[in-house]
This record gives sequence, C-alpha cells and structure tokens, in this order.
Amino acid sequence: MLKKIELFKEAGFKDNAINNFLVHDSPYFKVINFNFKAGQELPIHSHDIEGQVSIAVLEGSGAYLGKDDAVLPAETGDVLIADISEPHGIRATSDMRVLVTIAPPI
Amino acid sequence: MLKKIELFKEAGFKDNAINNFLVHDSPYFKVINFNFKAGQELPIHSHDIEGQVSIAVLEGSGAYLGKDDAVLPAETGDVLIADISEPHGIRATSDMRVLVTIAPPI
Repeated sequence: MLKKIELFKEAGFKDNAINNFLVHDSPYFKVINFNFKAGQELPIHSHDIEGQVSIAVLEGSGAYLGKDDAVLPAETGDVLIADISEPHGIRATSDMRVLVTIAPPI
Repeated sequence: MLKKIELFKEAGFKDNAINNFLVHDSPYFKVINFNFKAGQELPIHSHDIEGQVSIAVLEGSGAYLGKDDAVLPAETGDVLIADISEPHGIRATSDMRVLVTIAPPI
C-alpha cells in the first residue's frame, strides 16, 4: 500500500504548544511533523542511543540549535542531520513546519 | 557534528535529466534530493529488499505513481510512504523538489 499524507492540510498549529503529528512509525523509521508558531521552541535534547535524525524545513524559518549555544539558521529547504545522541533543538522565527525522520525508530 | 544542507541553494535543476543530490548516507538511512523540471519523471520502479521509503515534496507539484497506473496528486507538504519492494515513481507537473529517505539504506 502506498500511504499519502497531506501535511499542509492535515496538521495545523497550536497557540500554546508545538503541534506534533505522527506521520509514520515502522520498524524502519519514524516520521514526525512538528509545526511551530513563531517563537515556539523544541529545546535542545538528546537520547543516548544509536541512530540518526534528519530535520527538514517544509515551510517557514527559524534555527537549528546545538550544544554550546550553537544556532544554525534554518530556512525552507534546509535539512539537518544529527546523531540521536547529539544535542539538537529547533526554534521558530516565523510559523514553521518541519519533518523529522528517526532511524532506527525510537 | 550537526550537518546542515541548504538544498534550495546547493541543488539545482537540469534540462535533460532529473537532478540527483545525495544529502546523506549512513548505516541508518539514505537521504536523497531529486529535483525535477516540469515534465520530468522518475519511472515506476521497486527493489526486492526489506525497508521503506518516504518521499516528501519540498516545492512544486506533480504526482506519485504506483502500480496499475495509480496516480496520486503530490503537492508541497505531501509525504508518501511505501515499502521499497512496492512499485513507486514520481512525475513533475511544475518544477518540483522532493526529499527521499530510504531506511535501511540501499
């Protein structure tokens, strides 16, 4: 089965929290859409396990956050790759949609 | 190390072929950016191996292709999930950027 998800229609924004939409979970990878209102932030975090994460910006802009106060501008079309064990976070400057893929799934 | 790739700056389009840009390859997943000029097509194909693929549209529009002439509209923000063993393809109506993630990597 092909499974199609229309994120721009199916997932919205919340005023008081990041909107978290599970796109797919399987033994191979986990795909999550996070929508941030301008100013919302996913704080820097990490998990002490094997694997990597990709974070693609589908819409809007903000920053990728890393350890030691690292701030990397994040614009539509940018992709960040990190080990899951490596501190990473996201801050939104405008309303912002990102697609996160975790492999293997957490 | 956090690795950031600015796809809209680093990957362009080609008149005579799909532009294929390897974003990342690791034991966990393979991430590839395909840029299609309007009218270009990645024909339906499949690989007889375990795993799944996600195809996210970063810009533009077209269609996801499946077996038995299935055609699913593909717009910016849409994501397709398929088994790697399942026939899938992409056709671009406008200039179109997609991000493909394969886990485990082929």
